[in-house]
Amino acid sequence: MSRLLDDDLYDIVVIDSLVSGTSNHQYLSPRYQLYTSDLCDTKTLADCLSGVDLVIHLAALGNVVESIREPIANFNANVSATLSLLEAMRLSSVPRIIFSSTGGALMGNTPPPVSELSLPKPISPYGASKLSCEGYISAYCSSYGLSSVILRFGNVYGPFSLHKKGVINTWYKLMASDSEISIFGDGSSTRDYIYVTDIVTGIVLAINSLISEPQNASCSTYHLANSQEVSLLSLFEIMSNILGYSKRPSFLPHRSGEVHRNCALSSCAKSSLGFVPSISLKDGLTYTFNWFQSCDL
Amino acid sequence: MSRLLDDDLYDIVVIDSLVSGTSNHQYLSPRYQLYTSDLCDTKTLADCLSGVDLVIHLAALGNVVESIREPIANFNANVSATLSLLEAMRLSSVPRIIFSSTGGALMGNTPPPVSELSLPKPISPYGASKLSCEGYISAYCSSYGLSSVILRFGNVYGPFSLHKKGVINTWYKLMASDSEISIFGDGSSTRDYIYVTDIVTGIVLAINSLISEPQNASCSTYHLANSQEVSLLSLFEIMSNILGYSKRPSFLPHRSGEVHRNCALSSCAKSSLGFVPSISLKDGLTYTFNWFQSCDL
Repeated sequence: MSRLLDDDLYDIVVIDSLVSGTSNHQYLSPRYQLYTSDLCDTKTLADCLSGVDLVIHLAALGNVVESIREPIANFNANVSATLSLLEAMRLSSVPRIIFSSTGGALMGNTPPPVSELSLPKPISPYGASKLSCEGYISAYCSSYGLSSVILRFGNVYGPFSLHKKGVINTWYKLMASDSEISIFGDGSSTRDYIYVTDIVTGIVLAINSLISEPQNASCSTYHLANSQEVSLLSLFEIMSNILGYSKRPSFLPHRSGEVHRNCALSSCAKSSLGFVPSISLKDGLTYTFNWFQSCDL
Repeated sequence: MSRLLDDDLYDIVVIDSLVSGTSNHQYLSPRYQLYTSDLCDTKTLADCLSGVDLVIHLAALGNVVESIREPIANFNANVSATLSLLEAMRLSSVPRIIFSSTGGALMGNTPPPVSELSLPKPISPYGASKLSCEGYISAYCSSYGLSSVILRFGNVYGPFSLHKKGVINTWYKLMASDSEISIFGDGSSTRDYIYVTDIVTGIVLAINSLISEPQNASCSTYHLANSQEVSLLSLFEIMSNILGYSKRPSFLPHRSGEVHRNCALSSCAKSSLGFVPSISLKDGLTYTFNWFQSCDL
């Protein structure tokens, strides 16, 4: 958001239910407008979207474990809401969408590194919800002339995420208060972490790609990831070093629905969009913890 | 249904909204029970499914063109209803499901022949609905221990289908009344037709596979098809010959959302289930038209 306002190229309409998030940033630009709404009221949404050239759809319930506990709530928030948004775009003739999908949850336990050529095989309702959205966006491109870029994010971390329940945030809070930490599984489980500004760069490249090309009903898919497979134990060591935490972790049983390994190649995003992530995990974690600490003050 | 009752191995519970279909067959077996209901009431559905060992889920709105006209109605009938069914199965601890998916609509314009290794790329809301259901079944297997076989049907034709709007039925009615026929596109568009009893054989093989294996939360996917790519013009010739129709077709523009070519390999179904289709297109069409004619009497 800051990046898009800084670019000073676009007027921005934000539609946010404000049911979650870290809202400590005020945008006072005349180029910015906020509608407080969720996505399920297609008619209201269509009114908000009147005259819009491109939608960046980032809204979702993104927690795998919660999706297993509440699959219908996850389905409504992710799939039904996305279909409502696509219908609203059709009603208001909005021609382009960028969609935030997922690499890991979509691919399930497909051996990494995965790419755009890997077969989706979700193992959680959250993963299934993202596959459903990808399918509907593909269909809306062919059937109704929408143009789209689907971006499959790695595990995103960074400032403004303190409300999220991912491992980095959870461990940060425990390490900062010198509490005990439990790891689900034996610690060999891996993720492919990507710093939020690298994701923003990927989104801006996708905007440029969609805006610069003639309207062509295309549906392109790219993984945005660091392509570095980091085990939970490695992450634990890096975070412990940065935060000066000296306790050892304990171990709990693996949780079903969570993928064991996750790492994606971003070579298509590089060749087609010019995407190259630039922030190392150690640097990104340091920036993130500095930001978290500034919130605590 | 007749095949399963004839086998005399299973008690059968049918859940059917009866909103479509050719209902000219009475099953008087004490092994057969009908509930007139749709799938969206999860609680009622769970009661119907109490004690059931395996669900064969064939309910759907299957018309591509109608799905483009009414994507939300298609989504509700196909995706929301399937999720409701999966939840009902979870509530009633039903351990196995066979799901009727699609080869053509799921794959969009992926060059044929497609297989289980091809990347789904739906181009219609109907195709997206089936991809969504496949994703959720995969997730329910891993997250909740369901076992499943997903069967991607080719273009099914045969008796009891006179209510359907596929090309074979539409042309049959026009040829039988010596009316004019229009082809959407130039006639080079292809499909992979499969006779209904071959599909039934595939379903029975899938039942045997799921029942004989230990409950293992697996999710296997197979294409059930003839692997013969038949153009609309070839189909027109074969049907004209069988029905003694001598008029020539006219041509209309191609309809968006309809795949241009469609043909799938069934080699995985052959090697894993022992599936081999046995009815040629010419024989199958002859049996089908004889049945249609018997309905007209």
